[in-house]
Amino acid sequence: MPDSVLVHSPATLSNLGCGFDVLGLALEAPYDAVRVTRSATPGVRIQHLDPYHLPTDPAHNVAGVALLALLKAAPDAVGFDVEITKGIKPGSGVGSSAASAVGAVVGANALLGNRFSKMELVDFAMEGEAVASGARHADNIAPAVFGGFTVVRAVTPAIDIVALAAPPLWVAVVHPQIEVKTSDSRKVLPADVPLKLATRQWANVAGLVAGFLTADYALIGRSLDDYIVEPARLPLIPGLAAARRRALAAGAIGGGISGSGPSIFMLNKTEATAQAVGTAMGEVFTELGIEFHVYVGPVATEGARVVSA
Amino acid sequence: MPDSVLVHSPATLSNLGCGFDVLGLALEAPYDAVRVTRSATPGVRIQHLDPYHLPTDPAHNVAGVALLALLKAAPDAVGFDVEITKGIKPGSGVGSSAASAVGAVVGANALLGNRFSKMELVDFAMEGEAVASGARHADNIAPAVFGGFTVVRAVTPAIDIVALAAPPLWVAVVHPQIEVKTSDSRKVLPADVPLKLATRQWANVAGLVAGFLTADYALIGRSLDDYIVEPARLPLIPGLAAARRRALAAGAIGGGISGSGPSIFMLNKTEATAQAVGTAMGEVFTELGIEFHVYVGPVATEGARVVSA
Repeated sequence: MPDSVLVHSPATLSNLGCGFDVLGLALEAPYDAVRVTRSATPGVRIQHLDPYHLPTDPAHNVAGVALLALLKAAPDAVGFDVEITKGIKPGSGVGSSAASAVGAVVGANALLGNRFSKMELVDFAMEGEAVASGARHADNIAPAVFGGFTVVRAVTPAIDIVALAAPPLWVAVVHPQIEVKTSDSRKVLPADVPLKLATRQWANVAGLVAGFLTADYALIGRSLDDYIVEPARLPLIPGLAAARRRALAAGAIGGGISGSGPSIFMLNKTEATAQAVGTAMGEVFTELGIEFHVYVGPVATEGARVVSA
Repeated sequence: MPDSVLVHSPATLSNLGCGFDVLGLALEAPYDAVRVTRSATPGVRIQHLDPYHLPTDPAHNVAGVALLALLKAAPDAVGFDVEITKGIKPGSGVGSSAASAVGAVVGANALLGNRFSKMELVDFAMEGEAVASGARHADNIAPAVFGGFTVVRAVTPAIDIVALAAPPLWVAVVHPQIEVKTSDSRKVLPADVPLKLATRQWANVAGLVAGFLTADYALIGRSLDDYIVEPARLPLIPGLAAARRRALAAGAIGGGISGSGPSIFMLNKTEATAQAVGTAMGEVFTELGIEFHVYVGPVATEGARVVSA
């Protein structure tokens, strides 16, 4: 077994339109590069080789907390040194904190001969996610661990994740450089929703899952619409309506807010369409005078993985 | 083309636990037998060869209204005589009115060389369903037309039905002889639901669709739970909690209220288990002193079909 491994841990889309808190999709890029090295010194040391000024105290770092949870279940492992190079900007809404937490536990698990199951890794990584968002959510963790398309069917009393294959899809993500705090984006959500809207929402969830599993792109497109969460968050993300309009005109299947925003994702059948859609969405933010990044890449069939020793 | 056809049109489970107003499943039995005969006399004549005293005025009979809708789209067809022998007791909650409406339009369509698509037949049959329930619902119509497992993704602005294959399953249905009016069972539903519960509900919908499409019986079982509609309707159906407890003890995968009740369905892997589950549920109603019928049969891969000229 090696003493050190390098893991690539991918960005992920959570919610996927109608599937608030439940559905997720893994991307090939961007990703965090996480090097985990076995140490004879008890505990966890974190170093960040990126410009984001994230806390390096392991008790306040998502990767640190995830590894401390893993160490509790594997006390013989003693300790780990971790170097994180974030390719995913924090606060972008494409699972930045989940990627670091997952990358760290996937790396540590490789150093331990993969003694833990993917479901156990989800559990450890969720401890890290709780530090970032204040709640144990698995909607970005699950696709980062399993790859493809995931359903978080339940978090309590036990974690129940359904990992499914996604059909070939290219994703365009535009990340406008505005700050939307997860806590703010939670605050605008209604406590109650009309049963009629909730019914339309789970009809779309049913259509979306069926669309993914039967590779029915038109059905995926029709089913992405979110009647509940996006209307509440629309005011937080200037340019969303225009970006969707231009994306659809450029050939996107459909899309919406990525996670709690501010990133906007669009699903596409081909790389060429995804590139055109990314460009079209970018133009909206150029016109608004808001800086942005565009990411284009395929859906990842695998989750976080060791790329070299 | 024949001048007369006999159609068997199946009972159906709507809602399927978590999938209120959206999911449906076709059964092999019971079914309505509907004979449709070409007539040179304009309009529709309905005869019921069963003991249920349903209206035979075509404007107030579900099959009559459905055929009148079809005739509007096919005025050259002139008229139909219809004989219905209901194998499905009205008011049982297993799609009795949908079966008659669908049987009639499937028969008429066969006499017209199948000029209408299944989606058009759904549209005609929904006109009939509206007479019975006061609303254009497709959740029993869709599985009666398509067979297997169906998702009614939308009814407006356009009908959007996703017809899917179901894995091999045996269904046990117990129909306690108590009256639950569809209008009453709608009245007890809350207008609003907590977003947290709605989220758990669509997580189960996602799990259930994935379970059906991947033939994951354990996932189907975990996903059937209904957090919203069943708790509201529980008081209308005495014996429901006990019937579920005994059914699960007898080996059922899971189940719930069929449609708006009072029937209770349970899904099972084998015929033997379904028989045992039917017996176990029946015992609950024997103890309560409530008469009941038990139906056991496989999920139907096909919907309503012509069985003879």
